[in-house]
Formats: sequence, structure tokens, C-alpha cells
Amino acid sequence: MAQPKFIIAVRVNEFKTRDLNPHVPFSPEEIAQVTFECWRQGASVVHFHAREARTGAPSNDTAIYGEIIRLIKERCDIITFPTLGAHKAPSVGDRVAHILALAKDPATKPDCIPVDMLTTNMAVYDSSSKKFEAEESVYTNTIGTLRHICEAVNKVGVKPVSEIWNVASVRCTEAFVDMGLFQQPVYCELPLFEDRIRTHGHPGTIRGMQALLDFFPRSADWQWSAHSHANTFAIAAAAIEAGGHAAIGLGDYHYPELGIPTNGELVTHLASMARWMGREVAGAAEAREMLGMS
Amino acid sequence: MAQPKFIIAVRVNEFKTRDLNPHVPFSPEEIAQVTFECWRQGASVVHFHAREARTGAPSNDTAIYGEIIRLIKERCDIITFPTLGAHKAPSVGDRVAHILALAKDPATKPDCIPVDMLTTNMAVYDSSSKKFEAEESVYTNTIGTLRHICEAVNKVGVKPVSEIWNVASVRCTEAFVDMGLFQQPVYCELPLFEDRIRTHGHPGTIRGMQALLDFFPRSADWQWSAHSHANTFAIAAAAIEAGGHAAIGLGDYHYPELGIPTNGELVTHLASMARWMGREVAGAAEAREMLGMS
Repeated sequence: MAQPKFIIAVRVNEFKTRDLNPHVPFSPEEIAQVTFECWRQGASVVHFHAREARTGAPSNDTAIYGEIIRLIKERCDIITFPTLGAHKAPSVGDRVAHILALAKDPATKPDCIPVDMLTTNMAVYDSSSKKFEAEESVYTNTIGTLRHICEAVNKVGVKPVSEIWNVASVRCTEAFVDMGLFQQPVYCELPLFEDRIRTHGHPGTIRGMQALLDFFPRSADWQWSAHSHANTFAIAAAAIEAGGHAAIGLGDYHYPELGIPTNGELVTHLASMARWMGREVAGAAEAREMLGMS
Repeated sequence: MAQPKFIIAVRVNEFKTRDLNPHVPFSPEEIAQVTFECWRQGASVVHFHAREARTGAPSNDTAIYGEIIRLIKERCDIITFPTLGAHKAPSVGDRVAHILALAKDPATKPDCIPVDMLTTNMAVYDSSSKKFEAEESVYTNTIGTLRHICEAVNKVGVKPVSEIWNVASVRCTEAFVDMGLFQQPVYCELPLFEDRIRTHGHPGTIRGMQALLDFFPRSADWQWSAHSHANTFAIAAAAIEAGGHAAIGLGDYHYPELGIPTNGELVTHLASMARWMGREVAGAAEAREMLGMS
């Protein structure tokens, strides 16, 4: 059976500073321009965080999110995948308020949002000092919170994307499909974590990815995309081989081994890798159809 | 290389009622008598929860824990492995207070205690109603809490046992070994969970177990023991083959497929399985040496 086309998602900024790579976009104009460049190189999904234009500080400003999406839509048909808001104030309302507001206007309506399917410690280990930083840090997503997020965004036609950090996330996703909160085709991401952030999930290796895929239901139509928070090309090659998809971007890692690359260059490399392995790269319209976002 | 002897742990009661199997022990005398029977059949570790003698309600009473251990030690040299206290009041002090008190008297000093190496949702899925029960339930063990528990019990000579529910737990355990909080030989348990409790960890299958073992460090001396919260014999066979250990007991599952078995009968079956597969069963003194509890 011919493999489906390969969907490239670009993760342009997250909370990354410009210390290690100055190509991290902050302002709506920068994010939209970088996104356009990535789309031209083969990206069909863009994940982004709103940032203050000058300082790069994280922003929860709905107007900024709106401006980003408006400027992206003026340039191309890429799938828009903004983050949820207010990580520090975990009420469901705070987390989806900007998404619900943006969905009211076709010019700013996002296509999909991430739903992190777990509660987990978030401490970071420093092996040189043999200490954890942020020892009390917990990322709380109760099942009730996750259900409310899915219900709220489904109602306004924004697709919830299952973020699968561990095996329990796979099993929860199955339950959420059973409850109708995720609809087929399910779109899910497999974020993998380097050694420092070992409290979060699986390591950023092919084995780390495979140990999630091993628990996927056999017959279901789950479109999955993997990415590491370090160099993601090995994982991407395994995903290309296995019929999955992959994400890449300066939001996850600054790629010093490639000099000081741009997001667009990373997408270019990933698209080349897919073609070398015999998989065609999906355009945004094709990706939309594969992922059930019309 | 000859395999090490096979260590059988028995998990006699947890919070199980007698509705489905009347052989669940509640009182100190019952727990001690059941433990003695299991020890005679080949168990070298006993994990237990204090319960009210009549109602079976969970108890945090240090005196009851003391009485259980005292009565067990009068009968045999099995490794005593009581649970931590106060699941609902997650201060570190509340969780280890009874252990520290018990450790003052050699007659009541426990050998080891479980440390659950994660924070996780604890909701339970009901596939018939397509709803989660206890949607807001979270089991919180911050890295700070886990560190404090280990430090407190190490100080009084009680061994912390790493409870590995997911891949992040494996990675955290490595960090805790690096920090000196777990000492070689590390003793760890791999609890696996049936389908209803899929928010907790890995499924109770050989694959669910293997997906944890795949991330164990290669060269380290980690003595590991697996158990399911359903029929655990397939997992046990895989553990016997792989050089690991296993736990069984009515605390996890009532085994209707075996009639109304006792804890002792379950241990007998597990010991037989090990011998059929060519592994000798460790006595308690041998297990103590293998697990670094002198």
C-alpha cells in the first residue's frame, strides 16, 4: 500500500529566546513571515506561541494571537495550530478563552489546538549539580479539564489535537475517542524529551517514539506526528518509514550543529529527507483533508 | 550465566474488600498468619496495608502497623514492605510518620517502603457509560516530595523501593540513583494497570512491562519485580524468563478464574511456574542479600 503523503509541522518559537539562535520569531509579522517561508518549503501545519514583539516575553493577548493568524492567512493556507493560554492559571476558561474568541471571526479562527493528555511532574534535572530544578513543579491536566477543553473547542469547530507524552496518554486518547471528544481521523503528536527533562515523558530517541506507537490501537485512523526537543531528524526518519509525520522547529531546539539555521531551512531539510526516503510531502490542502480539517 | 534466584513478593490486601474473595486479610493477626503461609510457600517479601480489623477500612494507625510487623517477625524472616500513609494528606510528614516511628524499635522496623515515582491523573474509565469516574483525581508526588521521602527513610535504615509506573519513572529513578537517594542494588517494582485505570500507566501485558524495561540503564544493578492489577501470570512468566522477579496477591486481583484462592495458593502457583521454567525460588535471607537489605 502506498504511504500517505508526509505532513511537516513547524514549531516556530515556543518560549525560546534569541540567545542561541536569533531566527526565533516574536512579533506577529515575524511569525507570519517565517510561517510563509516554511509553507513554501513544505510545512503544512504551524504551531506558535504569541510573544511580546520586543522582549519575546510570553503573551496571552488574544489580539496578538488574532493578528498572527490574520497575517498568516493573508499569505498562505497553512493549518494554524496556536498554543493554549495561561499555563500558570489552569482554569479551563483561561486556557481556551483566546481560542473561543478567535474562532468567532473566519479571519482569525485557528484550525486546531494541542491537548496535553496527562498530569506530570515538570522538574528538570541538572546532572552536573545532581539536583532537580523546580522540584515542586507539576503540570496539572485533570481528566475533567481535558474533557472541558475538548468540548469547548469542538463546539466552535476547532479540532483538538491529542498530545501523547506517555503510554497513559495513548490509553486516555482511546477513551476520549470512545467518548466522541476526539473525532476520526484523530490527529496526535508525540513530543519526546531530552535527558534533562526526564520527568516529563519518553526520551527523544526512536525507541522512545516506538514505545508509544506500540500501544496505538491497531485499526484506528490516527494520524501521528513525532518531534524531539533536541535534534529531531532520527525520529523524523523513523516516522517517515513508519507512515507517520514529523514536526521540527527552533521552538524545540536551536540546532547549533547546523550553524544558525532558520525555521525554513529546517523544514527544507526535513522535506528533503522525506523525498530521499520515497515519501511525497503533503501540501496544506492535502494535509487538511488527511487530518479531517476542512 | 546462571539466573539469580526468583524473588516472590506477595501483596496481601491493599484496599480490597471481601465481597469478591473472603480471604483478604484485615487484622494484624490475619495479615501475619497469611504472610506466614505465603512465606512457607516461597514468598520472601510481603506488602501490606493496615486495615480496621472489623470493617476493613483503611487505617493510618501506627500501632496497627507495628502490631502487624511484630506478629510477622515472630513467625518468619520475610522482608516487610508496608505502604506509605495518608494518601489524602500528601504532606511528606504524614506519609512517612508511621515508618519513622516504627523504625525506632527493631521489633517493628520495616525493611522497605514504596516510592511512587510520578505525578499522574487517577481517573477511572467506565467504557459502558463512556464516562470517567473521579475526573479531578490526581495523585501528586512532586520531585521534592519524593526526595524528602527517600531522605527520611534512608536516614533510619529503611530502603526506599522505586515504583516505576511509566517511562518517566525509569528516567527519574536514574536521577535518584545519581543523587544517592536510591542505592545499589536498586530494588524497583513495575506496577501495571488494566484497561479501566488507563490514566495511571502501562497496560498489564508483557508488552506493557517490556516498554518499561526497554529504558532501564544497561549496566546498572536494578533488581526489578513486575505485577499486574489483573491476572499476573503472563507478566510473571516474562519476568522469570528475563531474570526479573514478580509479585502477586489478592490485594491486586481476586482471581475468580481460580475459584476463590488464598494468597498462599497464588504464591504456590507462582513458585511452581518459576521452577517449571528452571528458576529457583529465593528464600527470604537470600532475597535480603540480593536486594541489599541486611
